[in-house]
Amino acid sequence: VGAGLIGGSVLRAAAAAGWTGWAVTADLAEGEAARADGHDVTVDLPDALDRAARQDALVVLATPLPAVPEVLREVARTAPDCRLTDVVSVKGPVAEAVRRHSPQVRYVGGHPMAGTAASGWSAGSAELFRDAAWVVAAEDDADLAVLRDVVRLALDCGAHVVPATAAEHDDAVARISHLPHLLAAVLAAVGADGGPLALALAAGSFGDGTRVAGSRPELVRAMCEGNRDALLDAVDDALGRLGAARGSLASTGSLGKTIEAGHQGRGELDRQRARAGTSVRVDLAAPGALAALRAIGSRGGRITALDGDQAVAETF
Amino acid sequence: VGAGLIGGSVLRAAAAAGWTGWAVTADLAEGEAARADGHDVTVDLPDALDRAARQDALVVLATPLPAVPEVLREVARTAPDCRLTDVVSVKGPVAEAVRRHSPQVRYVGGHPMAGTAASGWSAGSAELFRDAAWVVAAEDDADLAVLRDVVRLALDCGAHVVPATAAEHDDAVARISHLPHLLAAVLAAVGADGGPLALALAAGSFGDGTRVAGSRPELVRAMCEGNRDALLDAVDDALGRLGAARGSLASTGSLGKTIEAGHQGRGELDRQRARAGTSVRVDLAAPGALAALRAIGSRGGRITALDGDQAVAETF
Repeated sequence: VGAGLIGGSVLRAAAAAGWTGWAVTADLAEGEAARADGHDVTVDLPDALDRAARQDALVVLATPLPAVPEVLREVARTAPDCRLTDVVSVKGPVAEAVRRHSPQVRYVGGHPMAGTAASGWSAGSAELFRDAAWVVAAEDDADLAVLRDVVRLALDCGAHVVPATAAEHDDAVARISHLPHLLAAVLAAVGADGGPLALALAAGSFGDGTRVAGSRPELVRAMCEGNRDALLDAVDDALGRLGAARGSLASTGSLGKTIEAGHQGRGELDRQRARAGTSVRVDLAAPGALAALRAIGSRGGRITALDGDQAVAETF
Repeated sequence: VGAGLIGGSVLRAAAAAGWTGWAVTADLAEGEAARADGHDVTVDLPDALDRAARQDALVVLATPLPAVPEVLREVARTAPDCRLTDVVSVKGPVAEAVRRHSPQVRYVGGHPMAGTAASGWSAGSAELFRDAAWVVAAEDDADLAVLRDVVRLALDCGAHVVPATAAEHDDAVARISHLPHLLAAVLAAVGADGGPLALALAAGSFGDGTRVAGSRPELVRAMCEGNRDALLDAVDDALGRLGAARGSLASTGSLGKTIEAGHQGRGELDRQRARAGTSVRVDLAAPGALAALRAIGSRGGRITALDGDQAVAETF
């Protein structure tokens, strides 16, 4: 449901991996373009969902967050107990909308961590998810059969799967995606306030630190505002640290604690990326499978393959 | 005076351009390495300054900021009215130290905006300043003959010259260099607080936004702490903007003003880099030359050549 950058890329990547899929979009031009590329695309949401119900298809919700409730109400009418996942960039609010508007569906949330610089069907690609992380929500009440289907879809799209709860996901992306966008916006504005002289002296640190401030504002807003609660926590953490740095600089002249903590944090990223993992298997049919998956995700691990009921994972 | 990354590179670049130069360093190993590379390097500061006084050489102060007062006291003893510039990353505090410790020198400050990731003689290069901005302090009381010498040195080292007052320089670099380092440190710490799951999901925005947090903490501290007053203003600007974003997100759910201002600011950087300038000449012997130079710098312009007493500049 949705044939934009992400939904359109899922349709193409799944088709390339041998899945039979169809899409529905409210955007007539987008639907036309997708059909011209040889895909089965309709503008009739009830019809698309009715086909899904009759074939017990996995429904992939790929609309912007504000459109989710309306789609879910149609799901409740037409395909009330379907298998459902989503690719929206925030997980708690989608899970809450599912509970409210379509409580009978077998829902397991997902989020492929792929680019947002462009948008629309034409910006998509079957390769968009290659080597990307695709978070799959491993809540305690998750239906393991549906979870396995979602993992299969993500792996077939070329991604690796990071299992996490919705809350863990939202907290993590607030820190490593939404706060970076917000700080880039703040930095760009403070720099531009310095006028042409300041911008003429700008080099690597300012260029890097403001790069994502060039992204389309409406996309950045939708992403950040949709994760309000978790982002507020991350902003408070940043405000606290920046305020402490300010106080220390003003009173003692030292930025030691701030700079050292930042160096340590960046070092953790580099060390985590360089470390070697070990391979484990999780039997998705066994008790405790969800907790085992979450433990892998929380240590920075990932599912890299499915072997029948076994998830093959790299863990640390 | 100093044969580290910057001082050692000035010595090499100036020698390559045909200048006769010698260096003094308190670091015996550094001096040994520079001599092995064929340069005239001593560890005797009074002797080096005495030679400078006798030959009316342009003295280039290239020590860390904390060592500046001690060197200036020796300058006042041995070469009290020499021509003096510096390559320290902050200009107001150096100018203040000159007024206090060596008030008779003919001083015009400078700051080549070149890399700080590595340090020491061995990290230097005659090409370090190629196409870099080299700020030259065009204060109202500047000696124009010395200013022309400093401009000549910068141009011969491969840089272009940005004229600005010490205060303008310090405000600008606080915004486009020191604040980016501080925000990168804050972001890296907040991200690492999210643990291995958050770091496993980190992609472009976090990687870019934290890159300079990997720089050597002692160098980042020296740079930022040395520009305390201007950096406090920039930090207050950032705290105000981030606090306003927090308030708006919490109360109305909107980040519109913050994200739009950031997008606008980044756009100004991109547009400034793309615009075409016009060529002008400033007669350094004419009245109002310093004001004319500062006006060029404040519009993002630069001196690209010297033609006798004429500075050839690109302005906007």
